[in-house]
Amino acid sequence: MIRLAPIPAGLPATVPFVGPETLERQSGRPFAARLGANENGFGPSPRAVAAMQAAVGEVWKYGDPTSFDLTQALAAHHGVRPENIIVGEGIDGLLGLLVRLTVAPGDVVVTSDGAYPTFNFHVTGFGGALDKVPYHKDAEDPQALLDRARKTGARLVYLANPDNPMGSWHEGAVIEAMLDRMPADCLLVLDEAYAEFAPAGAIPTIAPDDPRVIRMRTFSKAYGMAGARVGYAIGHPDLIAAFDRVRNHFGMNRISQIGALAALADRDWLAQIVARVAAARDRIAALGAENQLTALPSATNFVALDTHRDGAFARRLVDALAGQGVFVRMPGVAPLNRCIRVSCAPGAELDILAEALPRALSAL
Amino acid sequence: MIRLAPIPAGLPATVPFVGPETLERQSGRPFAARLGANENGFGPSPRAVAAMQAAVGEVWKYGDPTSFDLTQALAAHHGVRPENIIVGEGIDGLLGLLVRLTVAPGDVVVTSDGAYPTFNFHVTGFGGALDKVPYHKDAEDPQALLDRARKTGARLVYLANPDNPMGSWHEGAVIEAMLDRMPADCLLVLDEAYAEFAPAGAIPTIAPDDPRVIRMRTFSKAYGMAGARVGYAIGHPDLIAAFDRVRNHFGMNRISQIGALAALADRDWLAQIVARVAAARDRIAALGAENQLTALPSATNFVALDTHRDGAFARRLVDALAGQGVFVRMPGVAPLNRCIRVSCAPGAELDILAEALPRALSAL
Repeated sequence: MIRLAPIPAGLPATVPFVGPETLERQSGRPFAARLGANENGFGPSPRAVAAMQAAVGEVWKYGDPTSFDLTQALAAHHGVRPENIIVGEGIDGLLGLLVRLTVAPGDVVVTSDGAYPTFNFHVTGFGGALDKVPYHKDAEDPQALLDRARKTGARLVYLANPDNPMGSWHEGAVIEAMLDRMPADCLLVLDEAYAEFAPAGAIPTIAPDDPRVIRMRTFSKAYGMAGARVGYAIGHPDLIAAFDRVRNHFGMNRISQIGALAALADRDWLAQIVARVAAARDRIAALGAENQLTALPSATNFVALDTHRDGAFARRLVDALAGQGVFVRMPGVAPLNRCIRVSCAPGAELDILAEALPRALSAL
Repeated sequence: MIRLAPIPAGLPATVPFVGPETLERQSGRPFAARLGANENGFGPSPRAVAAMQAAVGEVWKYGDPTSFDLTQALAAHHGVRPENIIVGEGIDGLLGLLVRLTVAPGDVVVTSDGAYPTFNFHVTGFGGALDKVPYHKDAEDPQALLDRARKTGARLVYLANPDNPMGSWHEGAVIEAMLDRMPADCLLVLDEAYAEFAPAGAIPTIAPDDPRVIRMRTFSKAYGMAGARVGYAIGHPDLIAAFDRVRNHFGMNRISQIGALAALADRDWLAQIVARVAAARDRIAALGAENQLTALPSATNFVALDTHRDGAFARRLVDALAGQGVFVRMPGVAPLNRCIRVSCAPGAELDILAEALPRALSAL
């Protein structure tokens, strides 16, 4: 009765992630600790909060379709030109546009088995052919990604550094060496959503006009503004300009543009957040250890806790924690899915985790 | 150096609309009256403002990917089921998703020459072939659209009712009759962005499960929340469900979801806005008449003022008004482009227009 175009007609009706609100409605009660989506419960800069509250009264105006002020500020912050930056509705939105720009139906895209599902959703959604290589020692494997890309003639290679869902990372020099070995006509999609939490050495030095890579950044994690939907990409001006051919020009929320600008300027707050997140990582690791779960090293705002069992056990633990009012998630594929993934959060929420975790484990 | 997929590689680098902020930066001074984008300067409901300000502190959370509460409220408001409603990032975002879902490269899409350029941007952007019929007496022409759709085997026919940029409208019965004559396998995209301003008789009675049509609504116009980016579509559950295959599931701004819910509930405010907009339409018409410009009848929050000259004259008038600090726009094609398009606004902004218009005209 409803006729879809061939590519969408062949897509599954599944949804990449179920949101915590849906789980809350199913269980009939709200989560006491929201530790599943790598949100940042320490929240945005008070200056960003104030700027957004002040901006609400002018929400009758469309946002600036060029995100001019924010783009200028981001360029200055990164020491690049505004032509190297495109602001969009979160990394998710930018990934979708990037795939649309670069992947024709049937083109191969290489990623890691267990890496970001939303990227895969976009690749499949535009008719691309996903080709996955396994993680190596709980980290994405640059050499395997490159080998596979060369073998398949891939258009894109996706790498998150630091990685989600394991929290692992590579030194910047590894990424730089990877770039030098990229096959011709293949673009590296370097997802740096968690970059602000990483040690300085994990961030590669890349010329902003390097045509072999596009870097993705976000205000959803360290800046604590997931619900505002602001991300940006840094890349070659020709690639950045191409986003204008397909993006929703008036898609940016005006309040979010203003909030992100204020958040970017508050470097003290960011430094405090990074320190609080590091302390929360340590506490989550300690809570894990008290319960025979081993924290993997993390350069992000979450910790993968190794259950030393299998995916079925981890799934039961995630469900048991939900039953205790704690929202966490877990990796989607073996062997990563022997872990549960716990987001960093303020002390009160980790107190709830501390009570819930032994109860959940003993109930299994 | 940068390799794009074939469809985006063939797209023009042009941008559908230049925003007022860009014009302000070019001229070096802000507009005194912002009357060009059919924004609603009367602003959102104070209850929506309060709800959004309260929501800012929780912007560290992603929005609910299902927009559950807003979808439920919209369904109740329209007397349809939640399965008939999809919430998205403005009508612009939803139009892009709809085209992606239904238009394969080369498929024909019929619209009116001079109708909404952003819809055309999406059609071209996904490789669709636009086929345009002329306006008839400054209104979109249902019979001509149908004839053309049948002749071309079109997948989509776009009609805005009320129309932008002319402000004209058809009776609901005309739209209902149009549906009964739709060719097989062709979907009517009924853009009702301005529906709240229209006389009741202009809104067709359509069964929510009618598979021949999808209706688009927005919080950007009557609800005064353009910068919040909230739109929704009403249609057959199978078509609505298909959006889940391609949409950015975590794309909705959390503050906007909460604001739209509060705005929808404040029916008194909406009624006041509709009355103030009607009064502003009358005042714009009177201002036009004082300056030998004839207001076209409008069922929207803007007025097309006929200059009785040509597009070149109207362009000079738009530019002269900008020089006087007044932002207005004009239709893009002849013969519509003999008009300028002035958005309804509070009295202070129309006072500025009243001063600027005779000066701008005398300068030509």
